[in-house]
Amino acid sequence: MELHRREFAALVLGAAASAGIAGPASAQTDPLPSWNEGPAKEAILKFVRATTDSSSPDFVPPEERIAEFDQDGTLWVEHPLYTQIVYCLDRVGALVKEKPELKTKQPFKAVVSGGPEAVAKLSMRDIFEIVLATQSGITVEEYRADVRQWLATAKHPRWNKPYIELVYQPMLEVLALLRANGFTNFIATGGGASFVREYSTRVYDIPPERVSGFAQPAKFGLGPGGKPILSYEPKVAINNLEAGKIENFWLQFGRRPTTAWGNSSSDDQQILEYTKAGSGARLSAAVLHDDAEREYAYGPAQGLPNTAVGTFSQEMYDMGVKQGWVIASMKKDWKRIFAFEG
Amino acid sequence: MELHRREFAALVLGAAASAGIAGPASAQTDPLPSWNEGPAKEAILKFVRATTDSSSPDFVPPEERIAEFDQDGTLWVEHPLYTQIVYCLDRVGALVKEKPELKTKQPFKAVVSGGPEAVAKLSMRDIFEIVLATQSGITVEEYRADVRQWLATAKHPRWNKPYIELVYQPMLEVLALLRANGFTNFIATGGGASFVREYSTRVYDIPPERVSGFAQPAKFGLGPGGKPILSYEPKVAINNLEAGKIENFWLQFGRRPTTAWGNSSSDDQQILEYTKAGSGARLSAAVLHDDAEREYAYGPAQGLPNTAVGTFSQEMYDMGVKQGWVIASMKKDWKRIFAFEG
Repeated sequence: MELHRREFAALVLGAAASAGIAGPASAQTDPLPSWNEGPAKEAILKFVRATTDSSSPDFVPPEERIAEFDQDGTLWVEHPLYTQIVYCLDRVGALVKEKPELKTKQPFKAVVSGGPEAVAKLSMRDIFEIVLATQSGITVEEYRADVRQWLATAKHPRWNKPYIELVYQPMLEVLALLRANGFTNFIATGGGASFVREYSTRVYDIPPERVSGFAQPAKFGLGPGGKPILSYEPKVAINNLEAGKIENFWLQFGRRPTTAWGNSSSDDQQILEYTKAGSGARLSAAVLHDDAEREYAYGPAQGLPNTAVGTFSQEMYDMGVKQGWVIASMKKDWKRIFAFEG
Repeated sequence: MELHRREFAALVLGAAASAGIAGPASAQTDPLPSWNEGPAKEAILKFVRATTDSSSPDFVPPEERIAEFDQDGTLWVEHPLYTQIVYCLDRVGALVKEKPELKTKQPFKAVVSGGPEAVAKLSMRDIFEIVLATQSGITVEEYRADVRQWLATAKHPRWNKPYIELVYQPMLEVLALLRANGFTNFIATGGGASFVREYSTRVYDIPPERVSGFAQPAKFGLGPGGKPILSYEPKVAINNLEAGKIENFWLQFGRRPTTAWGNSSSDDQQILEYTKAGSGARLSAAVLHDDAEREYAYGPAQGLPNTAVGTFSQEMYDMGVKQGWVIASMKKDWKRIFAFEG
């Protein structure tokens, strides 16, 4: 149902765009109704007009209209923990059932019997070990089924809603606006591509083959009865952080984004810098989490508190201002955050 | 012009398919006119009907209709040398101009001053060194422009035609038939993805982001004036041979092919085996080069001569027969090979 409503909205937006009324926002035809009027919204609409109007000097042919989106913190909530890490922590129970020897081994012991305080004290290295262990030794089909089942039942502790409802409505509108204007949308996540692929089509209308991200290798082998299978290994095949994100985007897709969206210095700074440096009209945009009341507030840019999850450094902020990125303040630029706010 | 004609053909095929007449081949509506009647053609049409008829037990929803194609020897000619290797050999001249010290160093010396006999004696290791050296130290945009220029002028010695005209007409018809029936086509080449991406859209109607293959990493750095650039390195990031082809297909796209097409034991055997082992109707197909008169004849399957380029082992042939792959004989199954035959 959710998807159908979104598809309908996209169709309406598409019709509006092809009738040439995607330009100045009006009450009736505003393609970004969850964005407050202001320089951010204006810059987005101006970029779309400049790149799609065939008489514009910045016109971009449809096949080169490539839009790249980070996921955690850009398309959906990443606090208090990246969703995929919550999934991996939840999988530790199943893992120790299969391998009971892990019950007494750290960091698994902390998760199984340490309580919330022990889990909160896990280092990034511990978490990484848990990610590799819980997402390996199973076939790709088993992993798919497990992620789907988890997504259907797990809920975010703050809103008590399934994670896939915690996507930002203003960003869904940006995805739909670009799609309706001939752009091809891609996800480049610092998280796991295989995880995001299980909901990218229904939530973002982006098919699995247009999702890149952190990846563990899937190894070819023969399973029961000599049947060929692919199983995940506890190794890293693709690391999508820092400059890796734009390097891997080129490696996997052979494309240069016309517009790129992110929110993290450890994830997105280089791809935003690279995208903006292209010739013609380019839109690099960063989401600033500065709304503790409606979502979360963290930086450290603009004096917002630094956290372990998500980092928007002052250096990246200054680079964005200097290079003319859109910096979208959740507090000032977003009229509403989630679709369920009504 | 070439593209327009093909697009038109695809549209016509599409209309035929949606009118429900893509089924039994007739003179008027045959979607595979360059295929002779026989078990190969029949199996392809049967597979398309079974997977797209919503009342069929083997119906596959459109989002899971994934078609994978090898390129060299499957979609276009790979003899007497893989086209990309011809390109790399042609680039040695420009390379030694930039780095004169290579003129006296093997294997570059052989290419620059050894004549055809010296080039013919190069080992696969020599060729590999030339591939990495000629395709690195330049930005991704410089590489793109160079490949495009080369493709516009270079010609195949036997037919004296641009390489992009040496695509197999029967395979273009398979691509169009699948596309018209809701399949998404992908290329998984043992050759270079970046090379194929320069013509995949216009020749196969497959955009760059749906091409995977051998890949050298593109490294992020700062170029003249501090402008961020991506430059190819003389290293291997992705090796797409043997089981690597299906492993990388999953890594890059998170998809399992419903149908897979290849021609080489060193390239395609595992992905064809894996695809065929899926549940429901699956089509694995291999092209057998057994027509020395109209193209080339090589194996070693079925007693055809073994060559350095392309290998279709008897082991793969026997596996294909046992598992019920389509084995398309160029001699018996293809009415014509190239579009320019008229």
